[in-house]
Amino acid sequence: MPPSSSTSDASPPGLFDGVLARGRVREDVSDRAWVQAMLDVEAALAAAEARAGLISAEDAEAIRSGCRAERFDVPALGAAAAAGGNPVIPLVRALTDAVGEPAGHHVHKGATSQDVLDSAAMLVAHRALGSLLDDLGAAAASAARLAETHRHTLVAGRTLLQQALPVTFGFKAAGWLVALDEVRDRLADVRRRRLAVQLGGAVGTLASLGEAGPQVVSYLADELGLSEPAFPWHTIRTRPAELAGALGEAAGVIAKVAADVVLLAQTEVGEVAEDRAGGGSSTLPHKRNPIAAVSASACAAQAPGHVATVLAAMAHEHERAAGSWHAEWGPSRELLRSTGAAAAWLRECLDSLRVDERRMRDNLGLTGGLLLAERVTSELAGHLGRLPAHDLVTDACRRASRTGRPLADELGEVPEVAALVDPARLRELLDPAGWVGSAATFVDRALDRHRARKEEDV
Amino acid sequence: MPPSSSTSDASPPGLFDGVLARGRVREDVSDRAWVQAMLDVEAALAAAEARAGLISAEDAEAIRSGCRAERFDVPALGAAAAAGGNPVIPLVRALTDAVGEPAGHHVHKGATSQDVLDSAAMLVAHRALGSLLDDLGAAAASAARLAETHRHTLVAGRTLLQQALPVTFGFKAAGWLVALDEVRDRLADVRRRRLAVQLGGAVGTLASLGEAGPQVVSYLADELGLSEPAFPWHTIRTRPAELAGALGEAAGVIAKVAADVVLLAQTEVGEVAEDRAGGGSSTLPHKRNPIAAVSASACAAQAPGHVATVLAAMAHEHERAAGSWHAEWGPSRELLRSTGAAAAWLRECLDSLRVDERRMRDNLGLTGGLLLAERVTSELAGHLGRLPAHDLVTDACRRASRTGRPLADELGEVPEVAALVDPARLRELLDPAGWVGSAATFVDRALDRHRARKEEDV
Amino acid sequence: MPPSSSTSDASPPGLFDGVLARGRVREDVSDRAWVQAMLDVEAALAAAEARAGLISAEDAEAIRSGCRAERFDVPALGAAAAAGGNPVIPLVRALTDAVGEPAGHHVHKGATSQDVLDSAAMLVAHRALGSLLDDLGAAAASAARLAETHRHTLVAGRTLLQQALPVTFGFKAAGWLVALDEVRDRLADVRRRRLAVQLGGAVGTLASLGEAGPQVVSYLADELGLSEPAFPWHTIRTRPAELAGALGEAAGVIAKVAADVVLLAQTEVGEVAEDRAGGGSSTLPHKRNPIAAVSASACAAQAPGHVATVLAAMAHEHERAAGSWHAEWGPSRELLRSTGAAAAWLRECLDSLRVDERRMRDNLGLTGGLLLAERVTSELAGHLGRLPAHDLVTDACRRASRTGRPLADELGEVPEVAALVDPARLRELLDPAGWVGSAATFVDRALDRHRARKEEDV
Amino acid sequence: MPPSSSTSDASPPGLFDGVLARGRVREDVSDRAWVQAMLDVEAALAAAEARAGLISAEDAEAIRSGCRAERFDVPALGAAAAAGGNPVIPLVRALTDAVGEPAGHHVHKGATSQDVLDSAAMLVAHRALGSLLDDLGAAAASAARLAETHRHTLVAGRTLLQQALPVTFGFKAAGWLVALDEVRDRLADVRRRRLAVQLGGAVGTLASLGEAGPQVVSYLADELGLSEPAFPWHTIRTRPAELAGALGEAAGVIAKVAADVVLLAQTEVGEVAEDRAGGGSSTLPHKRNPIAAVSASACAAQAPGHVATVLAAMAHEHERAAGSWHAEWGPSRELLRSTGAAAAWLRECLDSLRVDERRMRDNLGLTGGLLLAERVTSELAGHLGRLPAHDLVTDACRRASRTGRPLADELGEVPEVAALVDPARLRELLDPAGWVGSAATFVDRALDRHRARKEEDV
Repeated sequence: MPPSSSTSDASPPGLFDGVLARGRVREDVSDRAWVQAMLDVEAALAAAEARAGLISAEDAEAIRSGCRAERFDVPALGAAAAAGGNPVIPLVRALTDAVGEPAGHHVHKGATSQDVLDSAAMLVAHRALGSLLDDLGAAAASAARLAETHRHTLVAGRTLLQQALPVTFGFKAAGWLVALDEVRDRLADVRRRRLAVQLGGAVGTLASLGEAGPQVVSYLADELGLSEPAFPWHTIRTRPAELAGALGEAAGVIAKVAADVVLLAQTEVGEVAEDRAGGGSSTLPHKRNPIAAVSASACAAQAPGHVATVLAAMAHEHERAAGSWHAEWGPSRELLRSTGAAAAWLRECLDSLRVDERRMRDNLGLTGGLLLAERVTSELAGHLGRLPAHDLVTDACRRASRTGRPLADELGEVPEVAALVDPARLRELLDPAGWVGSAATFVDRALDRHRARKEEDV
Repeated sequence: MPPSSSTSDASPPGLFDGVLARGRVREDVSDRAWVQAMLDVEAALAAAEARAGLISAEDAEAIRSGCRAERFDVPALGAAAAAGGNPVIPLVRALTDAVGEPAGHHVHKGATSQDVLDSAAMLVAHRALGSLLDDLGAAAASAARLAETHRHTLVAGRTLLQQALPVTFGFKAAGWLVALDEVRDRLADVRRRRLAVQLGGAVGTLASLGEAGPQVVSYLADELGLSEPAFPWHTIRTRPAELAGALGEAAGVIAKVAADVVLLAQTEVGEVAEDRAGGGSSTLPHKRNPIAAVSASACAAQAPGHVATVLAAMAHEHERAAGSWHAEWGPSRELLRSTGAAAAWLRECLDSLRVDERRMRDNLGLTGGLLLAERVTSELAGHLGRLPAHDLVTDACRRASRTGRPLADELGEVPEVAALVDPARLRELLDPAGWVGSAATFVDRALDRHRARKEEDV
Repeated sequence: MPPSSSTSDASPPGLFDGVLARGRVREDVSDRAWVQAMLDVEAALAAAEARAGLISAEDAEAIRSGCRAERFDVPALGAAAAAGGNPVIPLVRALTDAVGEPAGHHVHKGATSQDVLDSAAMLVAHRALGSLLDDLGAAAASAARLAETHRHTLVAGRTLLQQALPVTFGFKAAGWLVALDEVRDRLADVRRRRLAVQLGGAVGTLASLGEAGPQVVSYLADELGLSEPAFPWHTIRTRPAELAGALGEAAGVIAKVAADVVLLAQTEVGEVAEDRAGGGSSTLPHKRNPIAAVSASACAAQAPGHVATVLAAMAHEHERAAGSWHAEWGPSRELLRSTGAAAAWLRECLDSLRVDERRMRDNLGLTGGLLLAERVTSELAGHLGRLPAHDLVTDACRRASRTGRPLADELGEVPEVAALVDPARLRELLDPAGWVGSAATFVDRALDRHRARKEEDV
Repeated sequence: MPPSSSTSDASPPGLFDGVLARGRVREDVSDRAWVQAMLDVEAALAAAEARAGLISAEDAEAIRSGCRAERFDVPALGAAAAAGGNPVIPLVRALTDAVGEPAGHHVHKGATSQDVLDSAAMLVAHRALGSLLDDLGAAAASAARLAETHRHTLVAGRTLLQQALPVTFGFKAAGWLVALDEVRDRLADVRRRRLAVQLGGAVGTLASLGEAGPQVVSYLADELGLSEPAFPWHTIRTRPAELAGALGEAAGVIAKVAADVVLLAQTEVGEVAEDRAGGGSSTLPHKRNPIAAVSASACAAQAPGHVATVLAAMAHEHERAAGSWHAEWGPSRELLRSTGAAAAWLRECLDSLRVDERRMRDNLGLTGGLLLAERVTSELAGHLGRLPAHDLVTDACRRASRTGRPLADELGEVPEVAALVDPARLRELLDPAGWVGSAATFVDRALDRHRARKEEDV
């Protein structure tokens, strides 16, 4: 297979990629990027073998100079992959031809196809996680900004989608921030510790490299900037599995934040809106759809199935799997792509989020004070006991719901209440601003950790 | 967006497509095929509206003549899809421009993006299922041939991967046949009954088509050769879900047959081999890998996760989902692609399967008769009772295993056995050919049904 | 193992069963019910063998009389199952002892453990689907009632959780009805056609039943009221897979309806409420949580993962799987249990649903007419062309959103509009009642089909 | 609800538990254990509030003394859970009654149901992981023993289930060891760092605890021996998700080891056997089924679906999810149970593993030297170039396969080979013992790490 003469430098987006493959990760996991990663592994292998004295530095350099993805014909590699069951076999043939003699001799020395593909997968993941962490970092920065700005903005806390107690919007955003920072830590940790080269030869023993095998593995890791494994992991799939799990977690966190945005943006709630281009509808000119949050949800929803497929494919038989290895390729790549897209969308969503404090305040007033019922219960419980107080307040709430009168009025007419709490205290008890507990403390903690984390990164 | 001047007629394979996207289904679900399907829907919609008297026949014809996928720029559509959250919006703009006035006016009349995408998805599925059924049919034909040819070929029946009782290889192949025919029936049924057009307009009521709405739906179905739904199904996702489930079943059946082949092809078993080009290893020149079966397994392993994602996305909110609809696109397409690839690989596998009757016979002899122990138990049970017979034979088997002597010898020395069964009868009892039960009857049934099915198809 | 003396007739609920195992299905899939189903299979097998002349009618009767679940010690069976890897082995020993000689001899004749467990699984599914269909039928009846009652009740149609166009609440409920009726049809069809007995003996050939094997299978199916398979399906797992897929579809439909209810019940929307006991919060006395809908969602969310596990376990090796068979037991049972619970919760939810027509009307007015923008677009498109009309109306909508003025006022000031549409016509165009398209037609169709379906059932 | 008078101290096994719920984890996750964990949380909450000065030490002590699971009626709690949607509500009522006045007043103070259930879930996980790590540790110890004992035992390395190159059985076992130690580290890390208490009150702000909220959280963590979270995590589900992912990884590793055992135990391979009670078949007296490995596979196969369900349930809406929280309960518990069972089975499997060195040697000889073809290629590549050498040896292998002659003979007759390699060297090249590469080095590394790890644990 002759190297392709094409010099196009990018992978054009597919039909659904505008939605499902947003962000830089799409390029990071493209066919072109994969071919380059496999070539990087071949080049690094040659360099490592030169350092170990197995081949000459000149040969290694000759190999390295042939390892440029744009010189290879991806569709031809894809088609030829069918014969042997993976794309490394035709790539090695093409690279050997491209390098020519004498160095061509030493291409792929001691390696098996899986070594190259597994190591390339780790390289691709390393690069894609870079983009993904960048987008998650920007989303976290937006969440931090919202948490800080809205530290005192009151909003209804909602449980089971019912208004429950007041919180601050800063507290909501701080929760997003904590979640985003947690998965950033998790992904960064997996990236740092668990992305390792794989080199084992046909059955993991590196038989054809003689005594030098483990040394070559070490040099290979050094050349590629990946971890060095103590043991070949061609059939120990904890690394792809842990990466998949961490991506699944990240997707879950993105889905949570996006779900909150979509719910807050409902016409009847209207507390936030995405203030960005797009969001129009083909038929409904007045719609202001939260497209970024919706797309983030859709991309994040791809993750659980992919994680399951990666986990289900862990039982690699003996010294190379009869299908389970190939079964990893698709979901591992899709997980990076779709979680990366989810992160890119969330970044756009939070970056553009417009907050409507007036609607938040109006919505808090919708229930005529019912929202503060717990506080009254709490006050009364000191006098009457928890359950009697609960039952008494519940009754008043039911009456207020039925009659539409404010809870203060209903409660004021209950003799036990009137006897224990004067009207001024009752008003105070029903003021949302006085019943947000430790929200501010938690916001401070979230911001402190976020800032400490960022400085540490520098 | 101006139509693209590109006239390339095919979608080149991606890097992993040689393995993971085998067969014609890859083309059926390509971006190009999707764009054409969406355009087919727009053209059919115009035709249907002309039949309903909503637009003129000339305008419908003008629209139809603009609906040629090769005139549109797929990457540009993909990129533009991000703004509104789906690729239909830019496609409609581009088509409207391409058609020009006055007919451009009537492009997409009364439809919403989801109508076009959902109907196109059904068209794509209809076409892809055609290719898939073709490959499954060829695989079934090979299984039928094997069942017929090897009706009397003895082979070890294995449970929990231990030799258990003799069966015939024809019986094994007939089991594959039955499974393949079942999923062919299932997929053909889904294809015939459940692939329906979707047309509902913005919220499903077809408000902008006035009284004519339901009539247009009916004509649209007729134009496209799809089913007519009694009710818009934009948020009733039973159709994509049922299709996904049927594909998951098909993948499971393919995985079963492929697993059997891989196991039978093991070096130590050697009862079958794939006799086809490929299967070489990059480093191990002697390997004869069952690449087709391995690849079929790998492709089939993609299905369960995709089915789960489609099912998990069924809870479409209100009149259009906030993410769950977009979340279907990827897994629905991947299910067709990977199950299609699995079917194509299985077809190649079975088509090339070489059967080694000698190895089957040799393997049957490995246990020195232990395999027929149940038959002896059965004979003795008539005299001694089932459990005592079971225990007595078990003991003899254990001794035979330990000593390596044939079971016949061990049994012959047990007084209860010697008293009830003479040596000639014991030899007869231990002849595998006499203990395959109703295997031939079942083979006949499988073949009869297969043949009846095929004639029915014509 | 002696039969237990316990005569307790029910399986007490587990700690989470109040939520996760609602309804009669919990009993249908209990350990006790499973033991009874396995015993029913043993009894029917004996009866079938008597009909085939393999054992005497007296022995069959003796066996049947021993097959009463309350006489067996479930925990002892559970513990003893570990030795051989399934609970049938100890059950057969215990049943043989219980029946005593001479009939004990003939217990389990010709069968293998998997035959009994697979056939019992089908019996359990048959019974559980009965309960499930009953609950789904009641839910459908409620949906039909809502569709009928609210045929003309206007409510905002919502896409991406934004108000889009008016629909009727009857149309929403009719969509639920169609979805519920579809999955009822699907489950009833699977129940009728696909739940079959399994009998194959050790490797599927029925070797120990001689010529009579297929006849015994036929009688067994007749005795148990299940389908007769043409071929043993011990390693052809399409039946459990198809059942799982159908349950997954049902769960998805339940999740859709429940999601709508939860969203409609939000404090800020308030269009429906569950009017039933429960729904209180441990700390918030005023909450009216839609517990039934929430619980239905939670139960339905169990399905996709279980379906994936069943599908992933389809590759049964050779003549009995080395793990994949056992792997089905849990998810197959849980799918019945959790989908059954979801159906029971949905029944309660819809049965208790209180509809607030006033809130529906008020919410429709929230956007000052923006909701009807499409209609104005449509009217203007006839004069100006679709895209110009779209752009013009979009601009007016944006101004109305910004200024808070009614859309009618903004539009009235646009010269192109004023020139084409007089104020009375504009008011008419912006009346929601005039823009629900074919909603009533679709409601009628849903109800007609529902009623026809019910009569057919009788 | 009065406390139950039952004093039974154990949870009897269910019908399938002998297979699917092996080991101590079954007890750790039983209903009884869950109730005790919830009561432990209530007791610790009271103690923490006493330390914070919110209630008296006497009241806390009175509450603690009531927190004994055996005094509560689990089925009654389960049934009552339906009303409010979780079992904490009835448990708190029952505990309040049991404690009586005045301390009853202070039961559950400041907490919401989810606080108790989430914290209890972490306690249950902490305990269950203890059992699971114990079983995994024992399995690892067996793997280490096998690696050490069989450091030099030659066995065929197999790729795609074809013999490829020789390895040592010690190397295979060391691979198992590395995998088991990796997931032990992962689970231990999650257990230590990520299992945290949850306390946030109704919406996470701890409003009803005033200033003392965060201090109470800290004391609560201290009382329960769990981590203290910096922020309430009621809607940040990274902890359950990370736990689920780690369990999924562990299950995948168990599945890999079990798959290898099942394959090595095949009748035709016969290199290992489980030497333990059980493994008999109900109908086949001679079978020696690897029941422990098969059961481990079956239990491990439950994991991917459960992980997917937990991940898919991460999008908790606002301040408490409308279903996604409840949706976690089942799969989170089942993951502990089934992965625990898989670990218990694997422990038994490896503990009982009998290795047949003779069969390993015999199997290595099956291909007449083809297995060493790579080595010959490697030697020739130095002279001829890699690809020409590969092609030449491939041809010889094909001839040897066809003729059945030893590879040495075929190669000896190739002029290029004869010219470069003398017969003695050819024999040496084809000796498996000389071609296991760095297998011994990798075994040493695995054992060194295992031992270092164990000492560190002490």
